[in-house]
Amino acid sequence: MDKLTLFKQIEKKQSFLCIGLDTDLHRIPQHLLEYEDPIFEFNKQIIDATQDLAVAYKPNTAFYEALGARGWQSLARTLDYIPKEIFTIADAKRGDIGNTSSLYAQAFFDRMNFDSVTVAPYMGVDSVSPFLSFEGKWVILLALTSNEGSQDFQLIQSQHGKPFYQHVLEKSQEWGNTDNLMYVVGATRGELIAEVRKIVPDHFFLVPGVGAQGGSLEEVAKYGMNSHCGLLVNSSRGIIYASIGEDFANAAREEAAKLQVEMRELLQRFCK
Amino acid sequence: MDKLTLFKQIEKKQSFLCIGLDTDLHRIPQHLLEYEDPIFEFNKQIIDATQDLAVAYKPNTAFYEALGARGWQSLARTLDYIPKEIFTIADAKRGDIGNTSSLYAQAFFDRMNFDSVTVAPYMGVDSVSPFLSFEGKWVILLALTSNEGSQDFQLIQSQHGKPFYQHVLEKSQEWGNTDNLMYVVGATRGELIAEVRKIVPDHFFLVPGVGAQGGSLEEVAKYGMNSHCGLLVNSSRGIIYASIGEDFANAAREEAAKLQVEMRELLQRFCK
Repeated sequence: MDKLTLFKQIEKKQSFLCIGLDTDLHRIPQHLLEYEDPIFEFNKQIIDATQDLAVAYKPNTAFYEALGARGWQSLARTLDYIPKEIFTIADAKRGDIGNTSSLYAQAFFDRMNFDSVTVAPYMGVDSVSPFLSFEGKWVILLALTSNEGSQDFQLIQSQHGKPFYQHVLEKSQEWGNTDNLMYVVGATRGELIAEVRKIVPDHFFLVPGVGAQGGSLEEVAKYGMNSHCGLLVNSSRGIIYASIGEDFANAAREEAAKLQVEMRELLQRFCK
Repeated sequence: MDKLTLFKQIEKKQSFLCIGLDTDLHRIPQHLLEYEDPIFEFNKQIIDATQDLAVAYKPNTAFYEALGARGWQSLARTLDYIPKEIFTIADAKRGDIGNTSSLYAQAFFDRMNFDSVTVAPYMGVDSVSPFLSFEGKWVILLALTSNEGSQDFQLIQSQHGKPFYQHVLEKSQEWGNTDNLMYVVGATRGELIAEVRKIVPDHFFLVPGVGAQGGSLEEVAKYGMNSHCGLLVNSSRGIIYASIGEDFANAAREEAAKLQVEMRELLQRFCK
């Protein structure tokens, strides 16, 4: 999927919502445990209930790996079920030497047909480039994350007077372009999003940390939006676990709809 | 497994060899494809042929993930087959926010009973700590890798006048200790290994990059060894693909034995 196709989805749905499928056997409604594949059944009902409101789905691979081979089957079935026009993100935080990154790319792009995968930058060019060589696929590179530990290394100043995450932004633009490279940019600090936007004006950002991790959607839009929206804002737990009863899919839809209403208004204000 | 138990293995076998199980359907001997689980069969024969020469096995998870659910089954069977006294490493390069890293730790430590997992440091304390909270298990944190891209970020100088990887070494010592934290230290530059050893005198290093990636075993021992050896040196392709014929396990044994002879001599010279 290219950038324009993604932007058309955003315009059509008036939404830049990404729904995180952090699906946990211990947190899904108990009546689903009677199904042969409860994880897939949960995802299916969430997707059915929200697909007109979301432009992306983001399964977090850890939740599936924790279930072993069975979890990988649920993940593959989920991917097959998501409508083709919706952008899919393997939130996997992979990254290794070249031949190994190539295999991860095969796993997510060829075997499961994800549109994108999140990648960690620490090992540099040959850990990221193999993912970029797949036509029509995307790397979403960790730049500035929203967790507590983001301060440990990402914000260390280099001798060039800029924080480490800025080196990641600058260097990686030599490897990819606005049609195959996005960045993870945490939502907890509006002024930092503005900093990042200055360095990469045209790239899409995947923004975690709205909702449970505590960022403001309005700040994100105000400081991060560009003329093609340029944002995918994720919410996971706040949507998918809105209810743990039999009404969970409807409850998820209601939460997603609230965000979509807010996003429509923000698109009108800031997407120009 | 604690540090002393690992060191006793090293003394007994006079070896600090780790064998990388980068098992690839396209590279294993073709007669194995008749087995119901060729990947496991290959690993089993490699383990049978080398277990008295190696102190650790390191499956690279990408090779298994690339095969989907079936690959995860082969990986789990391989783990069950490795003798309990041999140290096992999930070379997975994981790392994410706290609740997600906890799930990765469960997947590798509880579900598959690995002794250790390689972790990427970029997201900081809460991405690493969940792995450290498992009794008797280890984090092997990426510090200085041996690939081309290691220069892109790991060697950037901070305003404190030290390269970024040194910040990773220093900060992470606040999180773990010599009984639950090792470091990945690339083998391509002897003087850099000496630098790292100065900062972390007592931690074990996992050293990739001897053999196919091109480092010298003698340099690694000279600059990296401490009084408890402190080294696990990995070889993958050089051992497991020594032959692609029916004699592959014997050929692998021969390559492993060559390294063990060299390692015995290096232990006598440098482990004091």
